[in-house]
Formats: sequence, C-alpha cells, structure tokens
Amino acid sequence: MIWYRSDFIFIYQLLRKQLPTFAVQIMINITLPDGAVRSYESGTTALEIAKSISEGLARNVLAVKVNGEIKDLTRPITSDSRIELLTWDNKDGKSTMWHSSAHLMAEALEYFYPGIKFWVGPPVENGFYYDVDMGDHQISSDDFKKIEEKMLELARKNNVFIRKERSKAEAAQYFLEKGDEYKLDLLQNLEDGTISFYTQGNFTDLCKGPHIPNTGFIKAAKLTAIAGAYWKGDEKNKQLTRLYGITFPKQKELEEYLTMIEEAKKRDHRKLGKELDIFIFDDDVGPGLALWLPNGAILIEELEKLAKKTEQRAGYKRVKTPHLAKENMYLTSGHLPYYAESMFPPMVMDGEKYYLKAMNCPHHHKIFGSLNSSYRDLPIRLAEYGTCYRYEQSGELFGLMRVRSLNMNDAHIYCTEEQFAAEFRAVNDMYLKYFKIFGIEKYVMRFSTHSAEKLGKKYVDQPELWLKTEDMVRRVLIESNIPYVEVPDEGAFYGPKIDVQVWSAIGREFTLATNQVDFAVPARFGLTYRDSDNTMKTPICIHRAPLGTHERFIGFLIEHYAGNFPLWLSPKQVIVLPISDKYNDYAKEVCASLLHADIRAHVDERSEKIGRKIRDAETQKIPIMLIIGEKESTENKVSVREHGKGDQGAVSLPDFVKNIRELIEAQTA
Amino acid sequence: MIWYRSDFIFIYQLLRKQLPTFAVQIMINITLPDGAVRSYESGTTALEIAKSISEGLARNVLAVKVNGEIKDLTRPITSDSRIELLTWDNKDGKSTMWHSSAHLMAEALEYFYPGIKFWVGPPVENGFYYDVDMGDHQISSDDFKKIEEKMLELARKNNVFIRKERSKAEAAQYFLEKGDEYKLDLLQNLEDGTISFYTQGNFTDLCKGPHIPNTGFIKAAKLTAIAGAYWKGDEKNKQLTRLYGITFPKQKELEEYLTMIEEAKKRDHRKLGKELDIFIFDDDVGPGLALWLPNGAILIEELEKLAKKTEQRAGYKRVKTPHLAKENMYLTSGHLPYYAESMFPPMVMDGEKYYLKAMNCPHHHKIFGSLNSSYRDLPIRLAEYGTCYRYEQSGELFGLMRVRSLNMNDAHIYCTEEQFAAEFRAVNDMYLKYFKIFGIEKYVMRFSTHSAEKLGKKYVDQPELWLKTEDMVRRVLIESNIPYVEVPDEGAFYGPKIDVQVWSAIGREFTLATNQVDFAVPARFGLTYRDSDNTMKTPICIHRAPLGTHERFIGFLIEHYAGNFPLWLSPKQVIVLPISDKYNDYAKEVCASLLHADIRAHVDERSEKIGRKIRDAETQKIPIMLIIGEKESTENKVSVREHGKGDQGAVSLPDFVKNIRELIEAQTA
Repeated sequence: MIWYRSDFIFIYQLLRKQLPTFAVQIMINITLPDGAVRSYESGTTALEIAKSISEGLARNVLAVKVNGEIKDLTRPITSDSRIELLTWDNKDGKSTMWHSSAHLMAEALEYFYPGIKFWVGPPVENGFYYDVDMGDHQISSDDFKKIEEKMLELARKNNVFIRKERSKAEAAQYFLEKGDEYKLDLLQNLEDGTISFYTQGNFTDLCKGPHIPNTGFIKAAKLTAIAGAYWKGDEKNKQLTRLYGITFPKQKELEEYLTMIEEAKKRDHRKLGKELDIFIFDDDVGPGLALWLPNGAILIEELEKLAKKTEQRAGYKRVKTPHLAKENMYLTSGHLPYYAESMFPPMVMDGEKYYLKAMNCPHHHKIFGSLNSSYRDLPIRLAEYGTCYRYEQSGELFGLMRVRSLNMNDAHIYCTEEQFAAEFRAVNDMYLKYFKIFGIEKYVMRFSTHSAEKLGKKYVDQPELWLKTEDMVRRVLIESNIPYVEVPDEGAFYGPKIDVQVWSAIGREFTLATNQVDFAVPARFGLTYRDSDNTMKTPICIHRAPLGTHERFIGFLIEHYAGNFPLWLSPKQVIVLPISDKYNDYAKEVCASLLHADIRAHVDERSEKIGRKIRDAETQKIPIMLIIGEKESTENKVSVREHGKGDQGAVSLPDFVKNIRELIEAQTA
Repeated sequence: MIWYRSDFIFIYQLLRKQLPTFAVQIMINITLPDGAVRSYESGTTALEIAKSISEGLARNVLAVKVNGEIKDLTRPITSDSRIELLTWDNKDGKSTMWHSSAHLMAEALEYFYPGIKFWVGPPVENGFYYDVDMGDHQISSDDFKKIEEKMLELARKNNVFIRKERSKAEAAQYFLEKGDEYKLDLLQNLEDGTISFYTQGNFTDLCKGPHIPNTGFIKAAKLTAIAGAYWKGDEKNKQLTRLYGITFPKQKELEEYLTMIEEAKKRDHRKLGKELDIFIFDDDVGPGLALWLPNGAILIEELEKLAKKTEQRAGYKRVKTPHLAKENMYLTSGHLPYYAESMFPPMVMDGEKYYLKAMNCPHHHKIFGSLNSSYRDLPIRLAEYGTCYRYEQSGELFGLMRVRSLNMNDAHIYCTEEQFAAEFRAVNDMYLKYFKIFGIEKYVMRFSTHSAEKLGKKYVDQPELWLKTEDMVRRVLIESNIPYVEVPDEGAFYGPKIDVQVWSAIGREFTLATNQVDFAVPARFGLTYRDSDNTMKTPICIHRAPLGTHERFIGFLIEHYAGNFPLWLSPKQVIVLPISDKYNDYAKEVCASLLHADIRAHVDERSEKIGRKIRDAETQKIPIMLIIGEKESTENKVSVREHGKGDQGAVSLPDFVKNIRELIEAQTA
C-alpha cells in the first residue's frame, strides 16, 4: 500500500478540524513575514517562538502581531497564524513600549502622590502621556527629574506585566473600593468578557494591553511636558493634569532624540517658512490653505521643473484637468460614499452635485478612457501637478504637514500585466534618483498588503490578482535592493500600497509619498486597451507621487536643509554687496550679468556698512554673496563669500557666471 | 466796468437753468470722443453734427450714442451731451444696421408671404434673425435667393426709417385690427409713453429702435440659416420659423465674410481640437470643464514657459494660491454680492461658506498685504497661472471659448501713482511682444471709461482719480501708437478697463484679454506701503492678463494657425519616417538624438508604405518629417520634409539638430 501526500493531509485535517476534542498534542503553522512557515505546538507563546529563532531576537522583542493584531508576547497561540515579532525598530513595537512606559510613570507618580487618580494613558507619535487627577497634590516640571529617576529605579526591577481577565462585576467592585470614579466611567463602556487588568510592581490598571514582557526593557526615560486637559476633552468637565513622557531602550537613543528635538525646533518649517517668506496662511482664505509667497513659488517652480524634466525623459505625458467633477464620477470611482468624509462638501449647480477632487486619478482615468489605446501604445503614463482638496479637521491641521489643499506630483501609469514589473521598477528608480538629488540617505518603503479574510470587505475580491501583484511588488523591491517592511492588512481597497518613509538630515521621519497598484478601479471606469489578439483588456494602473505634495515636501526640505537650500533650489541664489555706494553701478552691472544667465540675483543697495550687509544676507541664508569694492570694480572681478563658509577669494566675473551656472545645472551643493 | 469770465458763466447759467422757459435759441455743448467740445443749437440732430464735421462722415454714419445710449441719427439733441457717431467699424453701428436689416427682411417676406406674422427680430453677433409665424406658407433655404434679391431691391429705394410714438391704446388698436397676436403680446409688457413704431417702405413694426437713416446703406444681403424656434423659447408653444441673415455696406465685405466663414468652419477649434487630440469634455466631469490631453498640455506648458520667461525678465514675481476662499474675502473684495451670479455656488464647511475663486486678485491682495512693503519695494508685480471658476449658463457654453474653468495668465501690479504710466506702458509693450510672436497683425484696445452721472452707483465715487487715471491711460495709448477706441460708461467698478481685441489670420475678431486699473479695491483690503515720508499710502493696482486664459487663447490659436502650430509650440515637432522596417534602428537613433536635444520627436515604426506614413503625418500637422532610407542611414543624414511645403533636401543629423534647436529658440516659423 502506497501512502500519498493527500492521505496524510486528510488525516491531519481529521485530527485538527473534524475531531477537535481529540486529546492529542496539536501542531500549528506559524508564518513569518518573509513567508517562511514553522511548525510549533499549539499554545506556544511568541516569546518562545522568538527564542526558537534566536536568543538575540528574544532579548529585543517587545510584542507580537498575530494575524494583524498586536498582542502580549506571553499569550499562547493556538491556531495557524501569521505573526510578526515587534522590536523597537517597529512602530508598533515602540507604541507597545510607550504604552507600558505610561503604566511605569503612573507607578512612579502613585509612589510620590498617593491617592491620585488616573484617566487614560495612551502611546502617541513620540512617547506617551497620562491624564491624572492630582487631587490636592501640586506638580510641576521641577518634579520631572525625581519621577524619571523613580521610573528607572522601578524599571530596573524587571517587573513583569501580568495580565488578568476579570468579569465586569469584579472590575467594578475593585474600582468602587478604590473610589476611582474615572476607571468606573471607563468600565461603563466595556462589555463583559473583554475586561482585563495589567499589573506591574505596585501598579494595577484597567487596560486591554498589550504590554512589553517586563519593565527591564526601559533603560531611559524623560518627562517632556505638562499641560492641562479637560476630562473627556470637554471644557465643562474638571481639568486634569496631562503629563507627557518618552522612553528608550538605550540611554544613547534618548540623548540623540533630545538633540534632534532641539535641532528640529530651530528648523521648524513654520518658523523658517515665515522668516524666509516662503508661505502664509490667511484667516479670510481659510485654514490649511497655504498661499505661496514669491520665495515659495520659486521652490515650487524649481521642483516642478525637475519633476517635469525627469518625467519627460521617463516617457510620461502631461495632462491638465479641472479641480472638480460631478458626483457621478466619484460614485464610479468609489470615493463616494467611502471617502466622502475626506472630501470637501459639494456645490450644487444646475441641480447636480459637484465635488472638488481629492485625488487626480478619476480625471486621469477619464483621459485614458478617451484615448482608444492599443497594446502598442501602452504603457501610457499620465502626469499632472494637480491640486487636490481634502478635508482635515481643523484641529488636525499642522503647518504644511497637514493641509487641506495639496499640490501633488501625481501620475498614473496604465500598463499590461507583463509590463507591470518593469514599470514598477522604473518608478522605484525615480524615487532613488530623487533621494540622491535631495541628499536623503535613510529611507524605507512600507509595503502594505491585503488580508485574505477581508477580501470582498476591506479589499476588492480578487485573491489571485492580490497574490500575483503583491508577489511582483515584493520581487521588485528585493531585486532593487530597496529597504522595505511588509505590513499585512494595510493595502488600499484596490491593490497593494507602498508608503515611502524618509528621514530628514536630523533624523526625523516623514511619510512623503505613496505608490499604489490598482487592478480594480480601471475596470469600474470601463478602461480598456485593444490587445494584440484584438480583444479588449483592462490595464493595471500604478498611482505614484515620488515628490509627494509641494506642501509636505517643501515642509520636509525646510527642516532637512534648515532653510539652507542648495544653490539650484534657493529662492535667492546670489546677493551682490557693494562695500559703499560708490560701487553700486558696478554691482548693478554684475547683477545684470547674473540675471541674464538666469541666476536669481539682486543688489543690496542700502547705505549700510558691509558687515551689516553680510550679516543680513547670512540671516536670509543666501548661498552666495559677492563683495564688490575698488579692486573688483577695476578688475571686473567679484569676491565670493559662501553662506556659512566665509570668504572664497576673488574670481573674474565671466568665470564666476560660468562656474555658478555649472553648479546650478548639476543640482548639487 | 470789467467783465470777468465768471460773469458770462453766471448769465449763461441763468439763461439755461434758472429760466428754462425763456424763449431764446439755446446753445448746447457736444463733447466728441476725443474730448473736443463743439457748440450747436439745441435741437440739432447727430446727422447734422456729422455733416458739420465732414460730408464723408455723414455718408457713413449709421447711428449715434448720446450719453451712452444708442439713438437714431435724426432725433434732435436738446441738452449738453457726450456723443459718439457710430459707423460700420463700430460694434453698435453694425448692430443698428443689422437690426434695420431684420426689418428689411421682414418687408421682403411680407411681400412674398402676405399675412405672415412677426414675433421678434434682433441683431446678433454676426447679423440678425427674425422669428416668423409663416401661417400656411412654406419656406425653405431654396427661397433665400429671391428674398435676398427683394431685400436689395427695396434697399435701393433708400426708404427712410420713420419713427412714430404712439399711445398704448393706439398701438393696441393697430395690432387688433391687423389681427397680430404676437405684437399684442409684446405690447402687454410695455409701458404707455415708451411705445414707438418704425416704418420703412411698406413695413411697419412695433420697435423701440434705433435704426439707420434709410435702407440705402444696405448694399449686400445674405440669408444664412433657417431653423425652428418655439415661441418665447417654450416647447409647449407654437413653433415659429427663425430666419437668420447678415448684411453689409459693400458687396465685397459680404464676399470676404463668406470666405472667412468657410475657412472658420475648417479651422473650428472644436473640430481640430478633437482631430489633434488637444482637449475633451466629459459628461461625468461637467460642462465647460475642459480636460487637456497630452497634446493640449504641451501647448499649455509652452505658453506658460513663454509667459514665465517674459514675466521674469519684466521683473514679475510668481505666487501660488488656493482655488477657494471664505465668503468673507469675497465680501471684502465686493465679488459678493455683486458678482455672485458668475461664481460657483458655495461649499459649507465648519459652518462657513467657501467659494471657488472667480478671479485671482483677492488672493494676490492678501499676499501683497502680507509683504509689509516700502516705497522702495514698489512696483511689486505678482504673477500666477491661476485657475478660476466662473458660472456660465450651460446654454452659453461654447467649446473653449465660453467655459467654466479658466486657466488665466494673471498678474497684479501694485505701484505708486508716479509709477503707473511706466508700468502701464510696460504692460502694453508686453502685449505687442506677444502679438509679434503669434503673428497677430490686427488688434485694437477697447478703452472703457466711467460715466460721471453714475459715480457712486456703477462706479466708485472718486471723480478726480477717474479723470486722472483715464488721462494717464489715454496718454500712454496715444504715445505708444496703439490703435484704440474709447468707450464711455463701460469701465469696471473700480477703474478704467481695456479689452484687447485681436483678429485671427482669417479675420475673425476675438476678445482675448483685459487690463484693468484699480484704485478702489486695494483700499477695501487695507493694502498699504510705507512711503518715503513714512506715511502709509494705498497703491494703485493694475490687473493684466496678456495671454488671457489657456482655454480662449488656445481656442484662438487653433483657428489662427488652422492647427498648424509653429514649430516651438507644436505638440509634435518631428516625426521620423523609415521607408522600410530595415531602417527602424537608424530611425530610432535619430529620434533619440532629437529627444536628447529636448525636441518632441517620435518614430512611425508601422510597416506601412512611406507614402501612407507621409500622408498620416501631414494629417497630424506635424511640422517636420524626416525620411530615413539607405542613403540617410549610411551617411548619418536625414531627408527633411516640411508640413505643407514638401521636400527640403538632405542634411547631416548634427546640422539638423542644431538648425531645428535654433528655430525653436527663436520661436518663429
């Protein structure tokens, strides 16, 4: 008798599914992010899995994502699962540690201020906070140091975060006895059967978790701010004290963070944007709607020139579309009703609703649809610096980073399945080219995929196309040697998504751009091309925006360069500084030569001392100052001074013009 | 006793105003458009005034504008007036003749079809129409010829248009007897005391006039179309017959007109726009909202490049502003409520109304306001290719000529009074430069001024500033030798206005652009600059848009060039045509050299005969075809063929690239 593989599978299924009460040790399959599948006994914890991979990993792992849900490392896993072990390098790993750090801070606070009561203490983008009713106690930033020290002392005890599940009645009893009206209020909205407590050391909290295994992971702690916060955000309620903090697994990381924060304050794009006359907001125009001043418009023009040249050479074609369309188009695209909350409200005209565009894709689809393309015409790459409008709550708006009007470096590539990989690779290459131009050294692509369980709900129900395109994307990322992380269950409705994250010169992280693969919406628009076999086929569409929006990208660049834009990008490239009025005429001649060579130059004709003129030019961060005196004007020379670098010596005017034009063309420095 | 001038004025006023019943022959002052004042006896007619100026003028004058109102030449003028004698060269002169021609056509129709009844017969942009109830008569375009001949026969009788004023009762009696329910209907809406009849030859019509003196002015007549038209535009009413016609003072002008119409049909921008893939409209996007295809976007990009370069060299600074703003800004600017009907309906967001911008000025004012300028900074010239949205009734929309989204070559110049003349002259010079580039040979500036009586109503109440700026504008126009006509009482609310009218290569007239002087709105926005005496002053603002909107300008250019765009502007500049597949590789090399030199080129790789390839390239109106065969590929040459001109001989590839780049840079051909 020959045993076939299918027989084993049958028996296995019998054991696992048909006879679940059968008392045998059941094995489960654990799929790791790289696709590797390992077999473990049911009930194994993620910490044990980490240990089975490497001791080092086990020492660094903070939490685990099981089938997309973040959990404690110590909870047993009892069925086939896709898991991701979360370390400090992972956003969710950080969040978990910061959430645990909020509990640790609470423990320290309770030590110093017995009887205080706690509301909520979540992790935030950089650290965590806890809202506290301090009772009769007083607290100020003067107390931060002792709290930080106590936190570290408690952390060193390696106290384990112990989870206990409780019935609603038990939980209520506990807080009634404690006299904690805040937690009782929280409890009201929880359902019986979902209630858990976490305890570490002497502190117990109502909390759904997850937490890091023990406090020992926290090696550095800093309280960063204190503020008032109305209970539940309602100013009719009592004001609580909100204490912000941040923690790190290494003291050195805290120090680096503090340096970065200090530097980021100096480079704040809102502050520099104002000082360098780049943009304004105006109450009568509206929040989140930037008005670009002449210096800002130069940045925009230079970026657009770069993008247009780059895209033209890469075979893109430009289009130009209106900023609005009828409701019907957005019903077709699915923006209505799914994306309605992020869209501006409609205008009713001639009995129809018109919406401002929140994305350019539907308009581009309409253009592709009008082209009657054959397979010979594909790929067709339609590019536009289209301005989109998205509704953000006014409280969410933040300088150029969160706005309502977005000037987007947009394009849509329509291609066949066979062309997809090459097109996607070319898009990535374009990203890398831009990163080089802008001196972006650290970047990562966050590759979001679908979840098989949510097909037909969160994701378009085409399982094969999902797997196929995800596989193509993954392969290109690997082959191109691009650093990436894969995030299950965060894809777009219509296909896998790549968020491009970059780090500024001071190490702050920005999400600048999104690439999306779309194999669903083209069909909704009835887009087709005539294939070589004379049948009509639906193209795949790649949505891409390497330079993101002007708003966010320029906000990033201001911080990245600290306002010291490279020569080619700088709104003011050269300032001519005559050392006295006597040399104004020659200074103007010099300026005219520069303007003629399309160099952005002007003369400081004020009757000020040269020292003052230089100081003012340095404040304006103008890359090049030309000092003009007797020697220069008689010898047709200019004395060159570079911003932040000082005197570079004298050079003949024609040589200077030639050199600087070369520097500008090279888009370096 | 010495008589002073004031004494005479006193006596004169006594005679004219204090004692109006005094039976003396009163003299009136007639002000001509050039500002000259002539004295005539009260009761003089405009025809007599024309005769007093020149017999030639009297022979050509068709009607008169008295204080802004068009009147018959034969009506007596009885008070001081500003008059303009209207000839065929004047829009209102044409309208008057065409209105009279509608009466003439009616007379001819009544001759052939007794008993027919007339509804209304107005002049239109090109000619006139009359809506007629033909009763039992049949009429078709076959009858046009006999009607035209009859019209000319009647015209040759030099029948005078005789005006008679009638009471409402008399008029009603007349049409009751005639059994004309249409004119009775018209009569219902007229007030007693305002009712007049006009008679020429055998035709009498209820009509408020005015008319030309007699039918003899009409020397050429053409019926152009016949159509059905529901009475009062309501499809529940009876369908009348609408007959269109046009007339001219010379037979030659009719012939030229017919040639132009024929040519205009071939050059129709909607037809060529489709054939050359320049733009589309889409039902789901909305009427009047053009989507620019890749070829159209190239035209846009080239025009913007030209404008940006020109404006940069003229000292303009670019800005970029959102497409909407809060209601409050448009209340400040006065767009609300005065311009509300031309604006898109509001969006209600966060409890506030937001409007799409119909003009860029308020946003630019906000930017100027943020700059804290001193007199040293002025003039400040803020430029933007801003997209504005204006509501036009859907029935008014027409191709690219009447649209709802307008990409405007806009700029606002903020200057002192002293700087105004020079700035305004520079703007005019820029117009002339563009006219030269685009081969626009015929143009006229229509200079609209205020009306003293309407100060504080239609016009901002600053009489001195009106006179002063109008005088400055007039002086610049005269000194610059620019052809212009002055039109009283058509200025903007906030200052004098110049509409720029140009004629396309086939002699059709287009209004492309508007210049406006604005000495009112800057104050409403509280705009100031610090003057040399340290006081805050309000700048004058010049609104200017020499290239108008992309929509209208490109529409014009399509007709002007019949789609044969000059090389620098052409979406496709060069097509490379291998005479067989054997030469495809060399053709691709040639193409790559061209692309590298930023020349828009592509290869026709189809396996078609060279004759077919050439024909297709000619249809696409590609300026230059390069024929590639054995000789060319072995000698590294290209054989040049120009669109519409044929073979230009062979040339080495590097020479060709150099020559064509020079042609493109020169923006000629």
